[in-house]
Formats: sequence, C-alpha cells, structure tokens
Amino acid sequence: MKNFSIIKKQSFNFILSLLITIPSISQTSLDSTKILQYKNISRQIVAAALNERLGYKMLRSLCRIGPRLSGSKNSLIAINWAYNKMQEMGFDSVWKQPVMVPHWERGNIEEAVLNDSAKIHTKKLNILALGGSVGTPEEGITAEVIEVQTFDELKKRKDEAKGKIVFFSRPIDQTTVNTFTGYSNAVDQRVYGANESAKYGAVGVLIRSVTTEFDNVPHTGVMIYADSFPKIPAAALGYIDADFLSAALIEDPNLTVSLTLNCKTLPDAQSYNVIGEIKGSEFPDEVIVVGGHIDSWDVGEGAHDDGVGCTQAMEVVDLFKRLNIKPKRTVRVVLFINEENGGRGGRAYASFADSSNQIHVAAIESDRGAFTPRGFTLNSDSTALLEKLKSWLPYLQTANIDWIRNGGSGSDISKLKNAKLLVGYVPDCQRYFDFHHSPKDVFRAINPREFELGASAMAILTYLLSEEGI
Amino acid sequence: MKNFSIIKKQSFNFILSLLITIPSISQTSLDSTKILQYKNISRQIVAAALNERLGYKMLRSLCRIGPRLSGSKNSLIAINWAYNKMQEMGFDSVWKQPVMVPHWERGNIEEAVLNDSAKIHTKKLNILALGGSVGTPEEGITAEVIEVQTFDELKKRKDEAKGKIVFFSRPIDQTTVNTFTGYSNAVDQRVYGANESAKYGAVGVLIRSVTTEFDNVPHTGVMIYADSFPKIPAAALGYIDADFLSAALIEDPNLTVSLTLNCKTLPDAQSYNVIGEIKGSEFPDEVIVVGGHIDSWDVGEGAHDDGVGCTQAMEVVDLFKRLNIKPKRTVRVVLFINEENGGRGGRAYASFADSSNQIHVAAIESDRGAFTPRGFTLNSDSTALLEKLKSWLPYLQTANIDWIRNGGSGSDISKLKNAKLLVGYVPDCQRYFDFHHSPKDVFRAINPREFELGASAMAILTYLLSEEGI
Repeated sequence: MKNFSIIKKQSFNFILSLLITIPSISQTSLDSTKILQYKNISRQIVAAALNERLGYKMLRSLCRIGPRLSGSKNSLIAINWAYNKMQEMGFDSVWKQPVMVPHWERGNIEEAVLNDSAKIHTKKLNILALGGSVGTPEEGITAEVIEVQTFDELKKRKDEAKGKIVFFSRPIDQTTVNTFTGYSNAVDQRVYGANESAKYGAVGVLIRSVTTEFDNVPHTGVMIYADSFPKIPAAALGYIDADFLSAALIEDPNLTVSLTLNCKTLPDAQSYNVIGEIKGSEFPDEVIVVGGHIDSWDVGEGAHDDGVGCTQAMEVVDLFKRLNIKPKRTVRVVLFINEENGGRGGRAYASFADSSNQIHVAAIESDRGAFTPRGFTLNSDSTALLEKLKSWLPYLQTANIDWIRNGGSGSDISKLKNAKLLVGYVPDCQRYFDFHHSPKDVFRAINPREFELGASAMAILTYLLSEEGI
Repeated sequence: MKNFSIIKKQSFNFILSLLITIPSISQTSLDSTKILQYKNISRQIVAAALNERLGYKMLRSLCRIGPRLSGSKNSLIAINWAYNKMQEMGFDSVWKQPVMVPHWERGNIEEAVLNDSAKIHTKKLNILALGGSVGTPEEGITAEVIEVQTFDELKKRKDEAKGKIVFFSRPIDQTTVNTFTGYSNAVDQRVYGANESAKYGAVGVLIRSVTTEFDNVPHTGVMIYADSFPKIPAAALGYIDADFLSAALIEDPNLTVSLTLNCKTLPDAQSYNVIGEIKGSEFPDEVIVVGGHIDSWDVGEGAHDDGVGCTQAMEVVDLFKRLNIKPKRTVRVVLFINEENGGRGGRAYASFADSSNQIHVAAIESDRGAFTPRGFTLNSDSTALLEKLKSWLPYLQTANIDWIRNGGSGSDISKLKNAKLLVGYVPDCQRYFDFHHSPKDVFRAINPREFELGASAMAILTYLLSEEGI
C-alpha cells in the first residue's frame, strides 16, 4: 500500500499542475492519471500474487480434500470448504445455489485382461472406466476386439463389430499446435464411441486415452449414451497399453479381452454452485463474474482441472481486499458444479442470471490449467470491444499476457446468454492434456509462479472491467 | 513433400494468371507466392518436428553421456557425439575448432556441517561447491558465520567478517516476472561473493542457491576470483538449508559451520567448438549461425542448459534435409564450448568469424531452456530491421511465437561483433531457474512438444533469413 499512496499523491500533483497550466487538456490529464493508476495497480497485483501465493496455498487445501466428482461426498466437502473460505476472506455475501447433479460411481472393480487366442498368455491392461459408463455383469464380458480409428471406419466394418469389443485407437494428432484443438478432434471416440458401437451390436468399448503424453496412465472423461441403443460398458486404456493391444491384434486377431467394471449411476444428488461477491462501490447492480468449476473427475486431485480456476477466481477477490482495491462494479466469484458430466451448474447459474435484474457486464472463466499466461479470448464479434480490450494490453502484459483475440470463452459461462462479454483465460496449452482427467492431475503438478501469474492476469482484467465497464 | 509440390504448382498457375492478366502487379503476385510458400514451409516444419521429435531424441542421446563441464572427459565424449551425429545427418561439412578451456574438478569431498555453539547438535547442510572454487585444507575450515544480503551490507559490517564464513542469503525476488532479470539481480552473490568477502578477511563463503524453487537442491554456477585478494572456498546451499541456517543464526549467533571441499583447478585443457554447415545454394558466403553451448555444469545432465540449444540447432538442419529445403544462404550450426565458466568457445568462434571473408548475416542462440516458445529478441537498434522481422510473425506464430522485440541475444553469439543481426530465442521463463545448474536439469524435465516447438521456431526463422536476407 505504501507505493500506491505515493503514486496517488504524485498523480494528484500532476493533475493539479495540468489543470492550473493547461486546462484545455484536462481530459488528457485524467487519462494520464488513469494510465498511471492502472499500471501501478497491475504491478501491485502481480507482486502480491507472486510474493504471497495465497491462491496457490488455497489450491493446496482444496486438493487435500481429494477428487470431487459431482454427487460425491468429497464434492460436498469441497463446496463447504469454498463457502467457508469465502466467508473467512470477508466477501460481502456468500451463498450456495442448489443444483441437482448426476451421481456416477466408479465402484471398486475395474479390470481388463488381454488373453491370447491360444489361451496361454494374459496381460492386464491399465484402464479407467469412462464417466457415465454402465458396469459389466459380475463375471465380466469377454469378447474379441475390433480396432478402428474413426466412426466412418466403424460404419464400413459394422458387420465385424457384432458381439465384439470396439477399440477406438486414434490418438491426439501431435502435429496440432493447439492441444485443445487436438483434443477436440479425438474426443468423439470417448464421448460417443459406446453409442456408435452399440448401434452395430458391439458389447463393449475401449478407447486410447485422449492425452498428449506417451505413458501408461489412463485418462477418463464423460461419455454419453443415447436412449435408442443398448448401454455398453466403456473404458479408457493407457497410451502404452493401447499401443500394445494394437500390436497384439496384428499378431493375433482372435485375441480376446475380458472387461469387468462395477461402476454405476445412482439417482441424481443434491449439490450446489458456490457463489461469493464483493459489492461494486458505484454500480452494485453491474456484475463481473469470475469463475471455474468446483467438480473434478474422480481420480487425481482435480488440480489443473479445475481447482486452479476456482482458487484463481477466489484469489482475484482476495487480491482486491489485500490491496484495498474497491471495485466500482460487483465482482462475483462463481464456482460451478458439474462441468465435467452434465454442465448443470452452468445452466443453473445462467437461469438465475436471466431472472435477475442485474446486468452481467462480463464473465471470465479459467478452465485450462495453471500454465503460464498467454492471452484472453473474447466470445464476441464486436471489433470495437476487441480493440477496447486490446488497449488494456499494457496492463495485462504485467502478468505475462501477450494477446487478446476473438475466440471461445468457457463451457460454464457460455450459457450466460445475456452477459455483454464472455472471456476465456488462455494459459499455455502444451502440457495440459498430459494431466487432464487422470491420476496425474495433482497439486504437485502445479507451478506456483505460473498459477499466480494466471490469478494476476484475471485480477487485472477484472479490475479494468470494473473501472471502465465495456 | 506432397503438399509442398501441390502448393508450388498452384502458386505457379496463380503467378502465371496474374502475369498474363495484370502484369503491372507482378511484384505483388510474387509476394503472394512467397506468402503461400512461407506459410506452407512453416507448417511443414512444425508438423515434422512435432510428429517425429528427432531433436528430442537427439537430446536424449546427448543427456545419456552425463554432465559435460569444460575440460572433462564427458565434454569430449559429447563433442565427438555431436561431430559424428552431424556427419551422419549429412551436413556438407563438419569440423572441430580447437579451444583451450579451463579445467575445474569438483572432487569427491563436499561437506558442510552446522555445529551449535554448545557443541551438542550438528546438522549436515546440502551444498555444491561453486564452479572455480578452491578447495579447503584437508581438515576443512570451521568458522562462525555472518549472514548478509548485499555487498553494501557486507561493507558496512566488514569488521565482523574477519575470520568468518560469509553467508549471502538474498533470494531471487519472486515478484520479478522475468526470472532472467530476477536471476541477474541475485547472481552477484555467487559470482563475486568470495572476492568481496576475502577483501575483509573472511575465510569462506556460502550462498543461498540462486533458484526460483523452494526445495533443498543446491544450484552451482561460476564464481570469479580477483588476483588481488586471497582465494577462499565458496559453495551454494539448498534453499531450505539456507532458511535453516538463517533461522539458526538468530537463535545461536555463535554457531559454526565446518566446510570441507577438495575441488581444484587443473591446467587448461584442449577442447573444441563443434561446427557443421549446409552450403547456401545462392549465397554460400553469407552465413546464418544457429547454436547453443555443448558444455554444461557437472551435475544433472545439462538438459535445459544447454543440451536443448545444441539439439534444437542440429534439428534445424535436419528439418531442412527431411523437408528438402535448400537454403539460399549457408546455415551453420555452432555448438560452443565453455559458455558456463569462461566463454572461450564464443570468443574463439568470433575470432574465426572476424578473420573469415564470409558475411555473418545473422546468428540465433538458444540458451534459455526447452520451454514453450514466446518470442525472439534482436540485439539491434534498427527499427527497420525490427519491423522486417515483425512482418514474419504470421509464419513464426505457426510455432507459437507471439512477438519479436529488441533486447539481448545470447552470451556466445554476443561476441560476434561483425554479424549483422544477433537473435535470442526466448521460451517461457517461469520454470527455467527451478532446474538451472542443478542435479534436476535432466532429460526427463524436458517436455517434448515444447522442445520441438522451439526447434521449429528456430528453423522457420533460419529459413526466412536464408530466403530473404536482412
């Protein structure tokens, strides 16, 4: 706070001198003051974040709870942790918005064994059931395997699929520089693979984990059944075991895999979005949302996905409080439930926003991990808005932000149809899918400096939106 | 190559149509062709690098040799490895430029023990002798400790330093976003601490490791003696042990530390820069240097520092060969020896360049680790040159390069006074000093995608420089 007071005083003298000597450019002088103020606040935000690492420490607490799949006991513990934390931090108000969520449980039996056709050798494969999968009968299913790369290939070979386990083996294309694009281009196998296979009478599905890392850790994620076809079990294979199965099938096309899962879907469960806010000093009914999702998959600790987004959003407010920044507009932290397997938290908050008299000026989502900041994408086709936010780059660069571009925002805030601006925080993406939805997504995979620069970038943008509106 | 041929054919028809119908803008049409060609080649470079990872695989081979301090047996093995590798890869010529280098050896005794003044408790501290340090007498030295943060503080308290071990404990300032700046602002303690302390009669020096990570792994690095003062031994402490010592000194100011080192400096040794080139097809006497340094510190595997720079530079030429790119200007890979503790390889190459009739169009250095690409800095004050290189951003962005700025280049190429342009490759810097000069700088700390994007960025820039000159 010492530096800030000094600068304020200097600025005041500076304005005063300009007002006295050149009254005609007082507008310019006001701008100079703001530039100074914004630069100063940006630097303070970054310094406080990097020095004190409070968001990073909050993330450690959150990760200690363990994974937080919607409907699980852990998810409720995490929701209460966040609710209590925001109260401790002195938010003006904190509440829990009720949301009914899907409740899927992995169970305690999860096994895939490869048996050669001569019934001499067996090999256990590393798997994780996909989220939402049905279990197998207690004795498991044993079937031959057909390997395909695409739904088109499956369709062409549909007569071979009947009674078999379909093995979708197309990896993320490593030549795609944006790993989110690479992921999107491969994830159809995980989401719809079971459904497409059931169409042709297949009895189960294995997919190559949708990951950028060549190891043997399986990565789970959501899968969706259509009502029109039988529900068949589906699991993700570690990348190395997917290579193994692929090679084994060339040598021994009649090998079988025995798959046993006792995962199941229970009735929907009561859950909550956690919401906390500090009121705007000038425009309390204009709201800026910053958020991430509080649920995670049920393996690892949900660190990058998305404990990071939650604790970065909470740190935005904490930074304001520590630095005595009083935002002109209301800053609301929303920790969405159920991003991973339903998106119900996002929809529930959007309904609430639609029915409210408040104006949602902007929403910022962080759900791409704790890597070093690169930019922000705006879900907007307004050139004026893009140019306005680009004019803030000198402040955002303090937190290592290089660019503002049009693009997507985030899966939870994208449901906020009436928000004037949706913003996605974009950290570097090269490593994210090494960890995503896997047991590797744990707190020790977080770099504290990269995490805190992300929190700083979000805090600076939130501050500027609060001061300037859009 | 298939795509390339198609595009070339399309471009040819495109030029032809323009030449026939609108001859007055044939210059523009040439530009369009080039734009297409450059975009296409850039994409091919990135795809080949990310898909085949040959540079990353070369780095694995290099790291398996072990650390490669100048003068060591390993450094000669690495030099021969690189020489043979470049010949295998089909460089037009490969040679070793002789350079005499310092030869310092750590020895096999390296111990620091904290003894409380009551002589009841002792604690072993994690240390690494600084590179260039003298050893202690065989029985070690035992002395009280004075902790200081700066040379100014030491000067003020100089009467307390006599007969003591000076403990320099100022950490890297975590609030500095650019960690290279943070490092520069702290490293005076390591480089000149012993000399400054010897001035006032101190008998030894301990420094807090110059690192961004809060663990207990000590980080070594070069230290320099002046002839005018006694040479006293110096070692780096792990960060946690530096905290421990600092806390212990508050409780027990008369504690002592016993320091035993048997490191020593041997006579200068014969070594080499490794140089390989492919001749330019149009301007063989115009040279573009791409390089890194082949030596490393004697702990870890010298992966980020700077096995990465060497193998990225080698991959630039390999990518050209794989993609059948014939550069117009000569592309020369220079693997400098002795960057870490003398810079003699850089000076030797600069002398050779000065005495040669060839024109050094540009030199690009990679010596900041294998992290994800951010930009390139130009050691130039020419606005025209900066603007010219900025106009290449659309191609460089293919490899995740966001910016070109004026700034430094690299410690080896900075000696090339007659080069028209010196360029530093700048990957993200947040994690580099977690690994730098420590046993943690090993191959498994390298992310293959980030490494390969760096190699791609260097290859695209080298290609454009070769086509366009400056």
